[in-house]
Amino acid sequence: MRVAVIGVGMTKFGKHPDKSLVDLFAYAFFEALEDANIELKNVEAIYFGNFVGEMTDGSANLSGFVADEVGLKNIPAIRYEGACASSSVAFREAVRAVKAGYYNCVAVGGAEKLLSAGTAIGTRALAMAVDGVYEMTAGLTFPGVFALAARYYAKKYEIPLQKLREMMAQVSVKNHKYGAANPKAQFYGKYGDLKVEDVLNSRMICSPLTLLDCCPMTDGGSAVIVANEKFAKEVCDNSVYVLGTGQASGGSLFRQGEDIIKAIPRKIAAEMAFREAKITPKDVDFVEVHDCFTIAEIIALEAMGFFEYGTACYATAEGVTSIDGDLPVNPDGGLIGKGHPVGATGTSQIYTAVKQLRNEFKWNQVEDARIAMTDTLGGDFGTLVNIILGVD
Amino acid sequence: MRVAVIGVGMTKFGKHPDKSLVDLFAYAFFEALEDANIELKNVEAIYFGNFVGEMTDGSANLSGFVADEVGLKNIPAIRYEGACASSSVAFREAVRAVKAGYYNCVAVGGAEKLLSAGTAIGTRALAMAVDGVYEMTAGLTFPGVFALAARYYAKKYEIPLQKLREMMAQVSVKNHKYGAANPKAQFYGKYGDLKVEDVLNSRMICSPLTLLDCCPMTDGGSAVIVANEKFAKEVCDNSVYVLGTGQASGGSLFRQGEDIIKAIPRKIAAEMAFREAKITPKDVDFVEVHDCFTIAEIIALEAMGFFEYGTACYATAEGVTSIDGDLPVNPDGGLIGKGHPVGATGTSQIYTAVKQLRNEFKWNQVEDARIAMTDTLGGDFGTLVNIILGVD
Repeated sequence: MRVAVIGVGMTKFGKHPDKSLVDLFAYAFFEALEDANIELKNVEAIYFGNFVGEMTDGSANLSGFVADEVGLKNIPAIRYEGACASSSVAFREAVRAVKAGYYNCVAVGGAEKLLSAGTAIGTRALAMAVDGVYEMTAGLTFPGVFALAARYYAKKYEIPLQKLREMMAQVSVKNHKYGAANPKAQFYGKYGDLKVEDVLNSRMICSPLTLLDCCPMTDGGSAVIVANEKFAKEVCDNSVYVLGTGQASGGSLFRQGEDIIKAIPRKIAAEMAFREAKITPKDVDFVEVHDCFTIAEIIALEAMGFFEYGTACYATAEGVTSIDGDLPVNPDGGLIGKGHPVGATGTSQIYTAVKQLRNEFKWNQVEDARIAMTDTLGGDFGTLVNIILGVD
Repeated sequence: MRVAVIGVGMTKFGKHPDKSLVDLFAYAFFEALEDANIELKNVEAIYFGNFVGEMTDGSANLSGFVADEVGLKNIPAIRYEGACASSSVAFREAVRAVKAGYYNCVAVGGAEKLLSAGTAIGTRALAMAVDGVYEMTAGLTFPGVFALAARYYAKKYEIPLQKLREMMAQVSVKNHKYGAANPKAQFYGKYGDLKVEDVLNSRMICSPLTLLDCCPMTDGGSAVIVANEKFAKEVCDNSVYVLGTGQASGGSLFRQGEDIIKAIPRKIAAEMAFREAKITPKDVDFVEVHDCFTIAEIIALEAMGFFEYGTACYATAEGVTSIDGDLPVNPDGGLIGKGHPVGATGTSQIYTAVKQLRNEFKWNQVEDARIAMTDTLGGDFGTLVNIILGVD
């Protein structure tokens, strides 16, 4: 029995100071429910991803409140937290539960409120995704982790740092361009015609990363409906199927060494997903990867097996990852252009993948897309999840 | 294929200011690994429960760090957060994953550090298990929630409040007595001979609940090894089997009404577990229930189906829930006597259940125990999990 995604929803990403995390999930949930054309009573469980509701809403233990808010008190509802990968972990677990026959139909989603929390709380909260005892206390925040990665990448692959910066900037130009065209994106209508120089000359955040090398802080919610094939076929004729999933863990940065740029746990997770889907990277039509920083997109594409180590930067610069290239990457703008509401990011990637595979992503539609892959990274290579989706 | 618990471990509950959450889990994990007599490489995934590492260790995204610390980088590791039910949710999901054939053998556990965080941070953190937007901002903390429940219980069932207070006090006397005898308990060697008057006359926390009606704040870790029957039989001959599990969700307190004392989601979860185990409450030899406050034990026993609504208070007063009574409750001291390291509490109940069913709980052994049930409550009736365990 295959597992299908039969409905997707998401809020506009951006600033939602008037909405709680529960509100943001509920909005996305009901859009997904309507998209799936099912009734509330069909949803048997909720898998909810959230990173730091404790810091932004003063709320942990949100799964019960989420269930209650949408009218589904009494069903099992579970909160997953794996930093930026929270709702991807939730999605994978939901898929496996449906595949095992525990449920016919469940909802998966996530929510986060980092933009309206303000920069100070947002930065402190994000830093909780690194090791809180040894790494954060040493002053490490996320721009620092990926600035280290960029420098290591340049050194390891013998690329002059300025040359790498220029290639990284092209990731930003591309993702901002796609984000600017996506009405659900935080930067809809903005930064659509950036130039490499704009990225290089924007404010330095943590050398060599400038402001435009970084994804923004974001409020938002996303949700998808997951069902078994039998139920899916009863209610809709545009199912997208889950072909394979993978998950692995990293760990302390000081023990990772070369893994910072080789992202071995991600390689393991991606290979797990490819094996289950019985396909190879060549079969994938487009990908949604975790571009929390420009260098992160490059590292992700290599570890996932799409490019040799040390070469994805060149591929990006050559346009291979553009929508009209061989492997479109982040056609919705990615984290950089669409925004990154941490707990909601994973299922927002699924949203895009499903819309694209149904040929409904009219803003930046990848032509003839049949197979999509998503990639989410939680923390400094701590939680890695890859999902492969496809249509018949 | 049945699912077995083949090893259990836990730290002493109490104060561990020198240990991180990762350390606490690791200690319990290696004790469980040794108890199971298996090798590190046998563990294929980690299910980790933690409530508020963000507040106490400045750490979210702990699952990868936990896996790395015990030498299992690269395997899937997932953090579950459902307030006090965090590791119970993790346990149930682990059991279902093993039952579905995804893994042969996994580790489940939890950790929390509320005592060494201090009263101010601890109280603020615990309040995050109620609704952060509407309830906490109205001044509600946990003693408040259960003080309301106690008053409602007295009114609904027409019991004079002082009479109810005396019966509640007997829960405290019993659980402190058992905790005092348990070397892993926070109050080992303490409060073993309390009298009802001591409870009634201890410091008032939130009327009618006094200090000795409340469980303490606690640091601690716990872990168990879950395996399928085939693997279990290869490595040990003292397996304890998971006979049934159930989970349900509550929601906002203001929508619960009578559910505050009837705990309908808990009734649903318990019935789900009984149905799966194909037994009735009469078949259960002893229970571990979520006695965060004395009144909570009474409410739990009723919703689980062991006593009619409004009567568990009398049963307690009559000794029915003592170790030599018809239904021993919390023979390890429960949350009140053993301590309540929130994220570690669920798997510490499994620890006790397994030790008892293996006839190894020499401090307060329930005679001829063959079937045990656990009950964990996350938040103000937000996340409910029940587990039934048994031996052949």
